[in-house]
Amino acid sequence: MDAWRTSITHVDEKNIWIRGYEIGSLMRRQTFAGAVFLLHKGRLPSEGESRLLDAILISVSDHGPGSPSAATARLACSGNRKGLSSAIAAGILAIGDEHAGAGEACMAIIAQGLRRVKSESISIDDAAERAVDDAEAAKKRLPGLGHRQHATDPRKDALFDLARDYGIAADGVAFMIALEKAASSRIKPLPLNIDGVLAAILYDMGFPPEFGKFVFVIGRVAGLTAEVAEELAREKAMRIHVPVVYDGVPPREIP
Amino acid sequence: MDAWRTSITHVDEKNIWIRGYEIGSLMRRQTFAGAVFLLHKGRLPSEGESRLLDAILISVSDHGPGSPSAATARLACSGNRKGLSSAIAAGILAIGDEHAGAGEACMAIIAQGLRRVKSESISIDDAAERAVDDAEAAKKRLPGLGHRQHATDPRKDALFDLARDYGIAADGVAFMIALEKAASSRIKPLPLNIDGVLAAILYDMGFPPEFGKFVFVIGRVAGLTAEVAEELAREKAMRIHVPVVYDGVPPREIP
Amino acid sequence: MDAWRTSITHVDEKNIWIRGYEIGSLMRRQTFAGAVFLLHKGRLPSEGESRLLDAILISVSDHGPGSPSAATARLACSGNRKGLSSAIAAGILAIGDEHAGAGEACMAIIAQGLRRVKSESISIDDAAERAVDDAEAAKKRLPGLGHRQHATDPRKDALFDLARDYGIAADGVAFMIALEKAASSRIKPLPLNIDGVLAAILYDMGFPPEFGKFVFVIGRVAGLTAEVAEELAREKAMRIHVPVVYDGVPPREIP
Amino acid sequence: MDAWRTSITHVDEKNIWIRGYEIGSLMRRQTFAGAVFLLHKGRLPSEGESRLLDAILISVSDHGPGSPSAATARLACSGNRKGLSSAIAAGILAIGDEHAGAGEACMAIIAQGLRRVKSESISIDDAAERAVDDAEAAKKRLPGLGHRQHATDPRKDALFDLARDYGIAADGVAFMIALEKAASSRIKPLPLNIDGVLAAILYDMGFPPEFGKFVFVIGRVAGLTAEVAEELAREKAMRIHVPVVYDGVPPREIP
Repeated sequence: MDAWRTSITHVDEKNIWIRGYEIGSLMRRQTFAGAVFLLHKGRLPSEGESRLLDAILISVSDHGPGSPSAATARLACSGNRKGLSSAIAAGILAIGDEHAGAGEACMAIIAQGLRRVKSESISIDDAAERAVDDAEAAKKRLPGLGHRQHATDPRKDALFDLARDYGIAADGVAFMIALEKAASSRIKPLPLNIDGVLAAILYDMGFPPEFGKFVFVIGRVAGLTAEVAEELAREKAMRIHVPVVYDGVPPREIP
Repeated sequence: MDAWRTSITHVDEKNIWIRGYEIGSLMRRQTFAGAVFLLHKGRLPSEGESRLLDAILISVSDHGPGSPSAATARLACSGNRKGLSSAIAAGILAIGDEHAGAGEACMAIIAQGLRRVKSESISIDDAAERAVDDAEAAKKRLPGLGHRQHATDPRKDALFDLARDYGIAADGVAFMIALEKAASSRIKPLPLNIDGVLAAILYDMGFPPEFGKFVFVIGRVAGLTAEVAEELAREKAMRIHVPVVYDGVPPREIP
Repeated sequence: MDAWRTSITHVDEKNIWIRGYEIGSLMRRQTFAGAVFLLHKGRLPSEGESRLLDAILISVSDHGPGSPSAATARLACSGNRKGLSSAIAAGILAIGDEHAGAGEACMAIIAQGLRRVKSESISIDDAAERAVDDAEAAKKRLPGLGHRQHATDPRKDALFDLARDYGIAADGVAFMIALEKAASSRIKPLPLNIDGVLAAILYDMGFPPEFGKFVFVIGRVAGLTAEVAEELAREKAMRIHVPVVYDGVPPREIP
Repeated sequence: MDAWRTSITHVDEKNIWIRGYEIGSLMRRQTFAGAVFLLHKGRLPSEGESRLLDAILISVSDHGPGSPSAATARLACSGNRKGLSSAIAAGILAIGDEHAGAGEACMAIIAQGLRRVKSESISIDDAAERAVDDAEAAKKRLPGLGHRQHATDPRKDALFDLARDYGIAADGVAFMIALEKAASSRIKPLPLNIDGVLAAILYDMGFPPEFGKFVFVIGRVAGLTAEVAEELAREKAMRIHVPVVYDGVPPREIP
C-alpha cells in the first residue's frame, strides 16, 4: 500500500509534533481549544481566538438528554452497556443536516451577502434585505434565525461579547445581526439562534463552512460522555419504552 | 413514555444550566476542559485540575493518520465523503479494549496496589513489587508499561510536571513510577506509556476508571476531525487500496 | 503495509469466488441465507440448514419501532436525514449485551450442560436441573428464559418445527426444553424466549456463540432499513421530543 | 412523548405481524429475501422477485477484505475487539456516495431516459444516445458504467439471466444495455458495472432509488460479519500498520 501523506501530525520514535510544534510544549502552554485551532488552521491561535473557541465548544457541549444526539446515545447505551464508544458514536451519527446542520447553510448566506456588499457597493443592511428578498422569492426559511426552544438564545450574548472584546467580531457578525433585524421586521420575530450565532463568529474567524459541523461534534462529544455515564450509573438496561401505534394493514393470510 | 431524569443539564425556554451554572457564565469564565470536568464531576475544577485536563486532552488528540482510530475514519471517509459525522463516528468505533483500553486495567491495578498499602501497611514500592509478582504468577502483561512506538513517551514529562506543579500528583503517580521501576528491574526495560501516565493522573484526580476511555474519545475526536478534513481536501475518493492475499480453498464446483 | 490474508472471498480481475465457489453460480443456485451459511461455515448448507437460517433471519428482522435498535436508528435519522447508512449503523450500535446478547450466555450454558451429560453420564433432564441449581446458588437469572413482551414467543414453534422437520434439532434443543421445564416447575413460569430458542438451534447447527450476535445483526439490518425508510417517508425531521425532568442541583453562581 | 406510528410491524403480547402476516407463517414459507421484499414493498414477492432479490443480496455480500467497508470494519476491530457490533457499524459507515452510491444516480438517469421515450416518442436506443449527449455536454461520467476492478463484471450475467427468466427484465435493463452500447461506441469501452446492473434491475422491480443503498447494506452486512469473524480468529489486535509520510511544516518553537 502506498504511504498515506499528512501535514498534520508527525510521529517518530522519540516525539510527536502537531503542525510542527512538539506535543509536550503544546500541553504545557495551550488549552485544548488552542490545539483544536492549531489542528485545523495550522497556526497557533491568538488569546482571543483561543478563548472564543473554548466558549464555542462549551456552548454546544450539552443540551440535555432530549437533544437528538444525547437521546440516541442513551438509547444505544440502553441495549449495549459494555460498549462506551458505541453509544457515543451512535450519538454523533444523529448529527447531520437537521441537527447542527444549519450553520453550513448560514455561512453560505453570509458569504454571498458580503460578496454583494463588495461587488455591488451596497451596505451590509442592504445586503441583508436582499437575502430576505431571496428567501421570500424562493419561499425558503432563512437558516440561523428562529428558535425551536429558546425565545432568545442564552448563548448569544456571551459569544458576541467575547467576539467583540477580542476584536474578532467583523462583517459576519454584522451581517447576521442585520439579517435578524431585516427578517424580523418583514416576516415575524426571528431571533438569531445558536446556529446563526456560531456561523457569524466562525465566518469572522476564517473557518470554512464544514468546520461548523466539526466544532459541533467536538463540543457535543463532551456532553455525550456525561450523558452516557449518567445513563449507566442511574438507569437500568433496556429501560426505555417507546409508545408505538400500529396503523398498517390488518392481519391477513399468506395465499 | 416516562420522562427521562437527568442531573446534568437543565434546559428551559430562557436558559441552559450545566450542573447548576448558567451556560453563558461558563462560556465567559471557563475553558472547554473546565466544562468537561464540570460535566463529569459536578463541580468546577481548580486552576490546576483545569490546566491538567487541557493537557490530557491535547496529549491524546492526534497520533497521525496511522493510528487505528484515524485510519478507520479516513477509510470510512474514502467511501462516504458526504457524511462528515459518519467518518468521525467510525473512527471512534476503533477505540476499545486494545486502542486506548489499557488505562482502565491500569487504574484497577493502581487501586488494588494502594489498597494493599493501607490494609497491609506496606510501602508503595513494596505494593508495586507485589503487582509484578501477581503479573508474573498469572503470566500476564502489566498494563500501562511498554511502548509500541515510543522508547520514552514524549507526553509523560509534560503531564507529570503539570501534575506536580499544581499539587495534584499523589499516590497514583507514585505507584505507577514504582511499578515502572520494579517491572523494569525484574523483567525488562518497560517504560511507562501514555495509558499508564494517564491512568496515574486520572486516579489522582479522583476520576473513575471508565473516564479514561471517555477522555480519550473527547480528545481524539479533535484529531479525527482534522484527519477527515485533510482526507477530503487532499485525497481522492476510494483512493485506499489494501493489498490482499487469498489463502483459502481453490475454485470448486457447486455439486 | 503487509498484505492482508483472507480465506473467505477471492477477487481478481475476472471473477469473484466466495469460499471457492464462483459468485455467479451461488447467485443462481443459493438463497442469501445459504450465502451467509457459506461465508461463516466455509461449506454449502443442506436444504434444511438453508431453510432454517432463512427462518432465523426472518425471526429477528423486525420488532417494531420501539425496539432499542429501531428506536435508535429512527432517532439518529430524525437529526441526520441525508445519511442513510448513518441511521442504520446507529441502530446496530444498540445491539449488545442487553439487546440480543442473551444468546451467547445461553449457548455457554447449553455447552456446559451437555458436557455434564457426557462426563457424568446423566440425562439431559438431570443436567437441566443442575443448571437451575447453579443459577439458584449464584442467585443469577437463567438466560434464554422469561419474556419481556411475549407470554409465549410466537417464533418458537416455527423454528422448532423446522429444526425437527429437517432433522437438525438435537441435544441443544432438548436441553433448552428441559431447562424451561425444570426452571418453570422450581422457580416460576419461565417460557423460552427468542434468545433461548435461537441459542438451542444455533448450537445444534454447530455455530460458535458469537455467531448468535452476527446473525441477529444480519437479520435486524433488514428491519432497520424499512424503519428508516418509513421514518423518512412519513415523519418530519427533529420530530422526536423526549420528555425530560431535571433533578440536579439548583442554579448557582460561579464563585 | 407521542406514540410513534408505524405501518410495518405490529407487536402485541401474543404475536408479531409484518405487514399483516403472522411472523411464524413467514418463517415457514418465505426466504429472508422475501421478508426484505415484504418489509419494503408491503406485499409478498412473486417467486421471481424473491429469487432475484436473493441473487442481488448475494451479489453484494462480500468483495474481500480490501473493499472500503470490509477494510474499515477490520481496522475498527483491530483496536476494539470486544464490540462485534461496533466493527460492523464502522464498516457500514464506509458505504456512501462513493462506495455503492452510483446506483442512485444511475436510477435517476434511467428514469429520465424512459420519460423521454414516452414524452418524445423516441426509441430506448435514442434515449440512451441522448443520455450520452448530456454527459458529454456536462463533461460528467455516466454512473453505472466502467470498472474499477473487473473488465466484465462477473455478477452481470447471473442477474440479467435471472431477471429475464422470471420475466422481470424490462425497460430499465433495456436502457442500461443501450447506454453501455452508446457510451462504448462514442467514448471508450465502458462495460456495465455492478452499480449499473443493480440499478437496471431494481428499477424494473419498481424500487425507489434509495432502496439501492439499503439493499447494498443488507447484503454487505453478511460479508462484514464474516470478515470480522476472520479478523478475530486469525489476526492479532492492533496488527494493522499504515505507512505514513509527513510532509507538513518542519519542527518549530512556540513563540
